[in-house]
Amino acid sequence: MAIENPYYTHEFHGDYDLVGLGEFALEEGGVIPDLQLAVATFGTLNAAKDNAILVTTWYSGTHQIFRDVYIGPGHALDPERYFVVVVNQIGNGLSTSPHNASGANSAIAMSRFPRVRIGDDVRAQEQLLREHYGIESLALVVGGSMGAQQTYEWMVRFPGRVRRAAPIAGTAQNTPHDFLHTKALVEAITSDPGFAGGEYTSNADVVDGLRRHAGIWAVTGFSTEFWKQELWRGLGFESRDGFLEGFLEPYFTVMDPNDLLCMAWKWQRGDVARHTGGDLAAALGRNEAVARILPISEDMFFPVRDHESELELTPHATIRVIDDLCGHLGLFGLVPTYLPQIDRHLQELLDTEA
Amino acid sequence: MAIENPYYTHEFHGDYDLVGLGEFALEEGGVIPDLQLAVATFGTLNAAKDNAILVTTWYSGTHQIFRDVYIGPGHALDPERYFVVVVNQIGNGLSTSPHNASGANSAIAMSRFPRVRIGDDVRAQEQLLREHYGIESLALVVGGSMGAQQTYEWMVRFPGRVRRAAPIAGTAQNTPHDFLHTKALVEAITSDPGFAGGEYTSNADVVDGLRRHAGIWAVTGFSTEFWKQELWRGLGFESRDGFLEGFLEPYFTVMDPNDLLCMAWKWQRGDVARHTGGDLAAALGRNEAVARILPISEDMFFPVRDHESELELTPHATIRVIDDLCGHLGLFGLVPTYLPQIDRHLQELLDTEA
Repeated sequence: MAIENPYYTHEFHGDYDLVGLGEFALEEGGVIPDLQLAVATFGTLNAAKDNAILVTTWYSGTHQIFRDVYIGPGHALDPERYFVVVVNQIGNGLSTSPHNASGANSAIAMSRFPRVRIGDDVRAQEQLLREHYGIESLALVVGGSMGAQQTYEWMVRFPGRVRRAAPIAGTAQNTPHDFLHTKALVEAITSDPGFAGGEYTSNADVVDGLRRHAGIWAVTGFSTEFWKQELWRGLGFESRDGFLEGFLEPYFTVMDPNDLLCMAWKWQRGDVARHTGGDLAAALGRNEAVARILPISEDMFFPVRDHESELELTPHATIRVIDDLCGHLGLFGLVPTYLPQIDRHLQELLDTEA
Repeated sequence: MAIENPYYTHEFHGDYDLVGLGEFALEEGGVIPDLQLAVATFGTLNAAKDNAILVTTWYSGTHQIFRDVYIGPGHALDPERYFVVVVNQIGNGLSTSPHNASGANSAIAMSRFPRVRIGDDVRAQEQLLREHYGIESLALVVGGSMGAQQTYEWMVRFPGRVRRAAPIAGTAQNTPHDFLHTKALVEAITSDPGFAGGEYTSNADVVDGLRRHAGIWAVTGFSTEFWKQELWRGLGFESRDGFLEGFLEPYFTVMDPNDLLCMAWKWQRGDVARHTGGDLAAALGRNEAVARILPISEDMFFPVRDHESELELTPHATIRVIDDLCGHLGLFGLVPTYLPQIDRHLQELLDTEA
């Protein structure tokens, strides 16, 4: 049985479409009987169908942050020039996910949801773009964190289809440290007695675990300087605890535990080298897109050097470090200096012949 | 009622003495009726009583790691030249601690143990050295992490008594980020239903929480490169999980939860500026010791820059960064390149007139 969660509704997420792909076989062997992708689009697809930009979502994220922060006139992701398609990842609570699996998907609700991989998302996105919009070539694929994992997966899996790519704050092959980081996040949730093996009746049953999960994000998601310089003041908070209780904790406690766990499992195992028997150089060597790799300077778990080591293996790629004391969660556009950097690099990339 | 825990015994910790200081009033208002400090000494106090080195202990640590790794002929902490006194911090399981509070201390056992501050440890150490050994001046105070907090406390509280000081991988004023880091560690333990508000009957009741606590240390205690380069192989392990299950988890699961929480509370609130109404510059300005500040290059929660900002406020201080991919837990001396750096800097410091 699926459960109700008001966070994952149009009321909180505005306009988006549910596009059905029908039965969808997953790489790990499971099946989603009726995969629904939640898709938000901005702008108009041109007649040549060559002005499409795919935006992929991160752990806990939806199209909302892109709509509110990244996309709009004056930004690189400009709906007046491009047809911007944000596809919510499987399991994020808007697309088919453990908590909302009902009707044809009832059999995979909650703890019975099958394992999903980054490759499943990318295959589903490719099918969606081709079948639903007739898009065969993307002007740009861009995403942060798990969205960067999906971006790399596109570069390696569909090299002829991606003209430009911009992975932000995320790597092609997840690192052992990041696996352990995500493991700690997972355990914060699953250790809550209210989690009940994934068969809770409301996300509120797991609020303690979700709050501890937020507490780990507080440590790893920001930088030491974010806290020392009290950058949360710029977000309108007057105390550290006020920021935690008024921003970071409620951000996560409204979410569905099984949905987060579905994404976490995927995140931990993101690895384009699965296509090449573990050979990361061979996998990244397949890339044909003009790529700009965009690490965030203070990122604690997707550190700059991990991006640099993949840069060396990726043809047609350059790297630009985004200066941001916020660390990984700078992705939210928390300080006014963040997005202008992203826009400049994406604009340069879009202005590059490809 | 105190509880039995075989880890905190001579069988596991070798020789140490329990020295009673009698009733000890704490800064937070509590009282330890009969404070016992567990003390391990190496070498001989000279007639002038001016060759004493005080070594302070870190979170979860005891004198054992110093005896086994840092102290000995050929090391800077050479018992043939110095009288090295390692004082186990209050709450570490060997000195008076929640789990071992019995006899005169029965009333403060387990969850009833009073709050202890870094300043309490340092006052107790000063009393111990003066009353028990007649030591009024220390050739060196050295410690890592919480031991660095105690070292700074000595520099600020007893400036005339410390000739040299070497805080390793720890700061004089704990940072907001590190407060949150320790909060996550605490919550991993207290969220275990077996913790029972601190009134468990065995640390084994809290093994899940202690294991999750170890899991957070895996993320923050080492560096991203430690995991990527699989430096655990150098410690004799053949897999990442083998290292976690054979080293990091058992390291913590034998320990007492309340003891760890007593230390964690102290760690979170380490701050020499308590002596000067919050003015860190004024506090550190009191230092008279020749000081060498020793951050570890890859430390994720006591990062180098936090040491540098305190260096600027500390007279008579220099800084040398210890190169170690292990990160904070490099303190354990996990790679053969660590201790030679420590020895060289401590030796230079000891060779400096002071």
